[in-house]
Amino acid sequence: MASLTDDAATYFMGLQDRICAGLETAEGKDGSRFIEDPWQRTGGGGGRTRVMANGRVFEKAGVNFSDVHGELDPAFASGMPGNGLHFRATGISLVLHPKNPYIPTVHANFRRVEHGDARWFGGGADLTPYYLFDEDAQHFHRTLKSACARHDSALYSRFKTWCDRYFFIKHRNEPRGVGGLFFDYFGIGAESKSKDFGATSPLVTPSAIESDEARQFAFVRELGDVFLDAYLPIVERRRNTSFSEQQRNWQLHRRGRYVEFNLVYDRGTIFGLKTGGRIESILMSLPACALWTYDHAPEPGSPEAQTLKGICDERDWAE
Amino acid sequence: MASLTDDAATYFMGLQDRICAGLETAEGKDGSRFIEDPWQRTGGGGGRTRVMANGRVFEKAGVNFSDVHGELDPAFASGMPGNGLHFRATGISLVLHPKNPYIPTVHANFRRVEHGDARWFGGGADLTPYYLFDEDAQHFHRTLKSACARHDSALYSRFKTWCDRYFFIKHRNEPRGVGGLFFDYFGIGAESKSKDFGATSPLVTPSAIESDEARQFAFVRELGDVFLDAYLPIVERRRNTSFSEQQRNWQLHRRGRYVEFNLVYDRGTIFGLKTGGRIESILMSLPACALWTYDHAPEPGSPEAQTLKGICDERDWAE
Repeated sequence: MASLTDDAATYFMGLQDRICAGLETAEGKDGSRFIEDPWQRTGGGGGRTRVMANGRVFEKAGVNFSDVHGELDPAFASGMPGNGLHFRATGISLVLHPKNPYIPTVHANFRRVEHGDARWFGGGADLTPYYLFDEDAQHFHRTLKSACARHDSALYSRFKTWCDRYFFIKHRNEPRGVGGLFFDYFGIGAESKSKDFGATSPLVTPSAIESDEARQFAFVRELGDVFLDAYLPIVERRRNTSFSEQQRNWQLHRRGRYVEFNLVYDRGTIFGLKTGGRIESILMSLPACALWTYDHAPEPGSPEAQTLKGICDERDWAE
Repeated sequence: MASLTDDAATYFMGLQDRICAGLETAEGKDGSRFIEDPWQRTGGGGGRTRVMANGRVFEKAGVNFSDVHGELDPAFASGMPGNGLHFRATGISLVLHPKNPYIPTVHANFRRVEHGDARWFGGGADLTPYYLFDEDAQHFHRTLKSACARHDSALYSRFKTWCDRYFFIKHRNEPRGVGGLFFDYFGIGAESKSKDFGATSPLVTPSAIESDEARQFAFVRELGDVFLDAYLPIVERRRNTSFSEQQRNWQLHRRGRYVEFNLVYDRGTIFGLKTGGRIESILMSLPACALWTYDHAPEPGSPEAQTLKGICDERDWAE
């Protein structure tokens, strides 16, 4: 009999298919297509990495599915909920870097983890604009908020706050983008198990759905199902906006910040790099190109400066 | 009366002047010039950051001097040799990224640290070629080996080995470049105090000069003084080699590896980012531009593949 984790793996694999199909449709018939790179993990399981490069819309896009299992390193296992060393993790992870600086980069990830007797879901989606349009950030957040509300209306603000805390570039004192949702250990205590909170953890009333695996899974499916609805309308709205070298240059400098976040802070990236994960699938999240110029900063009052201020404000976009 | 650390600070500041002058000479009279950005540290001390961009030879070059002091975070202080919280650190740190892919990137750093009753020197220099020419790696290593030999002929192989271990990109299973020298805690036990060694620490007979501060300082000055001799002849030999877009593209992908090393492994970078160091001076080490392409690898048998193999061989270049 299939376990809920088996069902989640099947769902994530189908979601990968649907998202890739939607992105290829956005590319158009003359556009680029995903190439698939299936891989096996020595310790158990495997995945299928899909990447698209130099597209009409997407400069670099990666949509990974994986379903891996085996034995954890004891030191690592002891820091996780659950007993023993056996684990299984299945999920989908995507990062889309469009060519046009007016289209935001987006990241999403949904996963199901088993470790010993513990089982949980994690994931989220967040948006990183290079030029901030309120209507885009609002559309993204409102779509996610509505999806949450169909399950438990308290979840959006909990996971929006968590996202703002997590995707924060501490050494720059600025968020990576306008956020979205982030959650982990959903089903076994969520925020209380996370090191992102610690002493500043808000007192959260667990959602009724957190005690019911089927309802947790339905919530995660809802978020997966709305991903394209949250993102593609923004792509359609901005894809024909013309841009100059100067705007492209700003985008590539902001992509340097994306690299800084992913290599310095992102737990999944660092964990993967340090524990022998599949490097190319992990670093698929990095942009095709990033620039660093000493003391680079936008002109005061410019659209770039307004974007940076808008990002740093961490507004309640779904209001 | 000036302490040895005061003398070291004076030496490092003069070395910054001499190195910047030598690099400006290499740029030529139509070339770029360093701009200086002096800064003060809130907790004590300061520095002068010097950067050059878009030069004829150097796409991005940074040569920093700093002399900072104050109180360490107790958690950090307890992990360092020496007692109490008071520290002073002065040094020079440079990273030079040439435009021409035939000229290697080079990094060097020399520093004097005081923490409570402990005092030591650290530093080194290492070379990162994009196209490997044996004569260039040999010249760099032989210059450093000769400099070491004027003080203690055992030091070169100790610090060459340490450099190969330190500048290693574990997740790629490849060295950052062809290495050079790396040392730390020189004067108080060198390798035995370093986490780079640990259980695999070689049994090293301490050098006679390690018990004599004046001789330690003379050794560090020797390395500082030969830096331009180790590097500039390579620049002169390669600066007029023409290159194509394909070669530039390979260089920019290798610069992605440089970013990966600096943000994921470099202790100075990570420490600086996580403890409120001056961000622009720390990240000055990043290249102007870096590329990441999924599963990027050189053609078998190509000069790029030969370079990668040559780097991974970790040869004894000074033989």
